Amino acid sequence: MLQISNRGNAMPASPIRKLVPYAEAAKKRGLTVYHLNIGQPDIETPKQIRDAIHNADFKILEYTHSAGLESYRKKLAQYYQGVGINVDHNEIIITTGGSEAILFGFMACLDPGDEVIIPEPFYANYNGFAIAAGVNVVPITSHIENGFALPPIEDFEQKITSKTKAIVICNPNNPTGYNYSEAEMQKLKQIILKHNLFLFSDEAYREFTYEGKQFSAMHLSDVDDNIVLMDTISKRYSACGARIGAFVTKNKQLLDATMKFAQMRLCSPYLEQLAGEAAIDLPADYFNDTKAEYQSRRDLIVKRLNAMEGVFCPNPGGAFYAMTQLPIDDADVFCQWLLEDFSYQNQTVMLAPATGFYGTKGLGMNEVRLAYVLNLDAINHAMDCLEAALKVYPGRTINK
Amino acid sequence: MLQISNRGNAMPASPIRKLVPYAEAAKKRGLTVYHLNIGQPDIETPKQIRDAIHNADFKILEYTHSAGLESYRKKLAQYYQGVGINVDHNEIIITTGGSEAILFGFMACLDPGDEVIIPEPFYANYNGFAIAAGVNVVPITSHIENGFALPPIEDFEQKITSKTKAIVICNPNNPTGYNYSEAEMQKLKQIILKHNLFLFSDEAYREFTYEGKQFSAMHLSDVDDNIVLMDTISKRYSACGARIGAFVTKNKQLLDATMKFAQMRLCSPYLEQLAGEAAIDLPADYFNDTKAEYQSRRDLIVKRLNAMEGVFCPNPGGAFYAMTQLPIDDADVFCQWLLEDFSYQNQTVMLAPATGFYGTKGLGMNEVRLAYVLNLDAINHAMDCLEAALKVYPGRTINK
Repeated sequence: MLQISNRGNAMPASPIRKLVPYAEAAKKRGLTVYHLNIGQPDIETPKQIRDAIHNADFKILEYTHSAGLESYRKKLAQYYQGVGINVDHNEIIITTGGSEAILFGFMACLDPGDEVIIPEPFYANYNGFAIAAGVNVVPITSHIENGFALPPIEDFEQKITSKTKAIVICNPNNPTGYNYSEAEMQKLKQIILKHNLFLFSDEAYREFTYEGKQFSAMHLSDVDDNIVLMDTISKRYSACGARIGAFVTKNKQLLDATMKFAQMRLCSPYLEQLAGEAAIDLPADYFNDTKAEYQSRRDLIVKRLNAMEGVFCPNPGGAFYAMTQLPIDDADVFCQWLLEDFSYQNQTVMLAPATGFYGTKGLGMNEVRLAYVLNLDAINHAMDCLEAALKVYPGRTINK
Repeated sequence: MLQISNRGNAMPASPIRKLVPYAEAAKKRGLTVYHLNIGQPDIETPKQIRDAIHNADFKILEYTHSAGLESYRKKLAQYYQGVGINVDHNEIIITTGGSEAILFGFMACLDPGDEVIIPEPFYANYNGFAIAAGVNVVPITSHIENGFALPPIEDFEQKITSKTKAIVICNPNNPTGYNYSEAEMQKLKQIILKHNLFLFSDEAYREFTYEGKQFSAMHLSDVDDNIVLMDTISKRYSACGARIGAFVTKNKQLLDATMKFAQMRLCSPYLEQLAGEAAIDLPADYFNDTKAEYQSRRDLIVKRLNAMEGVFCPNPGGAFYAMTQLPIDDADVFCQWLLEDFSYQNQTVMLAPATGFYGTKGLGMNEVRLAYVLNLDAINHAMDCLEAALKVYPGRTINK
C-alpha cells in the first residue's frame, strides 16, 4: 500500500496553529476572537520598510546570491556591530525566515540519530525541524516557579551522551519570556567547550527585554567556532510574513557547509531582502517606542492574569509571551473549548496550549502561552473573556 | 573535536553556482561573461506582477496561512483547471519556491535510507534535497543519442527494491529539455501502480514546449493518490527571486502530513504570494510571446552548437536548456578554464558542467548544460566564444 513516511506521521501539528479551524468556525458564528495564540504583532511594519517595497526598482525579479544580497549582508553586519556582535558580512547567510536558519543548523551540524538538548518549554517548531532533520530532541525541564530560568548545569551534564551535538536556546525565550543572564550564558559556554557542542542561539527577540539588556551568545569570548546565531526580522520589525532571517557564525567550515544547503534552495525571497535592508536604516528610537508598547502590554497582562483566582504568571523579562499556569485539567481541551463552547459578550480568546512546547509528555497540561501582541484594549477584553471562562469551564480544578 | 555533520560534508556544491567566484574574478578583470550557466531569464517580470508589488496595500507584513493565501490558492486552482488539471484550492500548498515543494515531498513520503529513482541527467539540486532528507537517489541513465528520452521501463524495474518509494521526473526536463510524451507518462503510471510508488512531477517549465503540448502527471487518470505535482512561478513568469512554488496532490493523507511541514516553517513570503496571484490574471497571449522568444533562442543555439566541429546538441522539445556534447576531456575543467584562462574579444561564456547533473560517477564528463535565457544577440556572442574556445582549449579531444 502507498504510505507516507514515518517522519510525516511523527510530525507534530503546530500548537500555535492547530486550533485555527475552531477559531475560523467561531468567527463564522459571529464571535470576536482575540488571537493571543500566535506571535503576530498588531504593530505596523515601519513605513520605511513598506516604502522600500513600494519603490522597489526592478525589471526582473531575479535570484539573489544564495547567501543573500551582498548589500543587505553588509548592512546587517553593521546592525550586529551596533549590538556588540562583531561579524563580517561573509559570516552571514540570509535565510528564509529564522525557521530556515534553524533547519540549516540542524542539518549542517547533526546527523540522523544525533541529539540536541533544549531547555523546555521551547518553541514548538524546534520539534518539527528536529523530526525533519532526523535529530532527537532531549528536553531539560525549566520551571514556572523560578520564571523558567536556565536549569542547573548538572541537569545538562546528566543528559549529555556521545550523540549530543548541540544545545539550543532562545534568548529572550519564546515561549517563556525568560531573558538569560550573562552568568547563565557563561555557564553554557563552559559546558559547550567541555563537551565540544554547538550552541544554537535563537535571538529573534533581542530588542525586547524589559529589565536589563540581552546578552547574546555572540558576546561570549573564545568560543567562536561553537556558536551559531539564528535570527529573523519577523518580530523585530513586525514583518513576520517577510520570511527573512539569518544564519550567523564565525565557524568557517560550518559556513561553507551551510552555503551548500543555501545553494540547494537557490536563494531567499528578493523583495523581502530589500525590506530587511531598509530596516537597518530605521531611526534609533524605533525600538524604544516598540519596546515601551510591549512593556505596557506585558505589565497589563501579567497584572490581569495574576489577579485571577488560581492563576500564576511569572513576570517575563523579554520577548512578548507569557507562559501561565491556569486552574484547568487539560490545556488542549480548554483552548479548544474556549473556541467551540464559550463566549463572553460575544467574544472569546484563542490561546496556545503549553503541552506542545514541552518535549516531556505530560508536562504543560495546566499551562498556556499568551502572546501579548494586541493593544491594551484588546488585551483587557481578552482577559475579561479568560476570567469569565475560568469560572465556568467544566474542567476547572477550583471552585467546582 | 567540534565537527559538522556527515550530510554537511556530503552535500554537493551546486554545479550551476560553484563556478561563480571564477566568473566574478573574470568580470573584475574586465571581461564580459555570458551567463548560460543558470536558468535566470533576461525576460522582464510582467508589469502586472511588478504593479502588484508596488501597489501592495498592507500595514503589517503578516504571516499568511501556512498553506498560502486562500485567495492565491483559489486563483491558482483556476490556472490549473485552465491547463486541464482538475484541482481544488485545498489540494494546493503554496511553497517557498519549487525547491521547498521537492523537499517537502521527500520528507513527507520517504524516510532516511529510502530510495528515489530519477532519470539522469537530472536537476542537480535533487541531490541536495535527497541528502538533506537522508534519502538515496538511484539514477537511471537517459542518453544524449535519443535526446534523453525516458529510459526503457525494464531499467526502472531493475532498480526497484523494497526501499524504493518514489520516482522523480521533471517535465519538460531540466537539464535535457526533453518533453515526455503521453505514451511515456502512461508507462510511468503502470510502474508506479504496480510497485506502489509516488510519482513526483516537477513541471516548472510546463508552458515552454516547442513541439506539442506538455502532458502533466496530473493528466493521468485513476492514479490520484500516487501523484505529487511540484511547481513554481520562477520560470513561468520570469520571477525566480520570488521563491513561490506549489505542492499539489489529491492524496489527502499526504496533504495533511505536508501541511505539518508547512506549519513548521510558518508560511511562504507574503509579498511574492501577491505576485503569484497577480500572475494568474495575465492576458492569455503572455505565454505565446514568451514561448516564441524562447523557441527562436532554442533554434539559434541548437543550430550554432551543431555547426561546431565535434559538438552534438539534440533538439530540446521544451524548457530552456540544451544539454550538449563537446569535444573536451573534462567539463568541470573546461568550464573553469573558460572563466579563468580564456577570452575572445574580451568576452567569455559561463556554462554548467554536466557532471553535477548525473548521479552516476564518471558520466557527463564531455557534456555541458546551456541555458538559453539570454537574447539572440547575446547567444550569438556566447556561441562565438564557445566556438573559439573549443579550438584552443588544451584538453580538446579533436584537432590537437
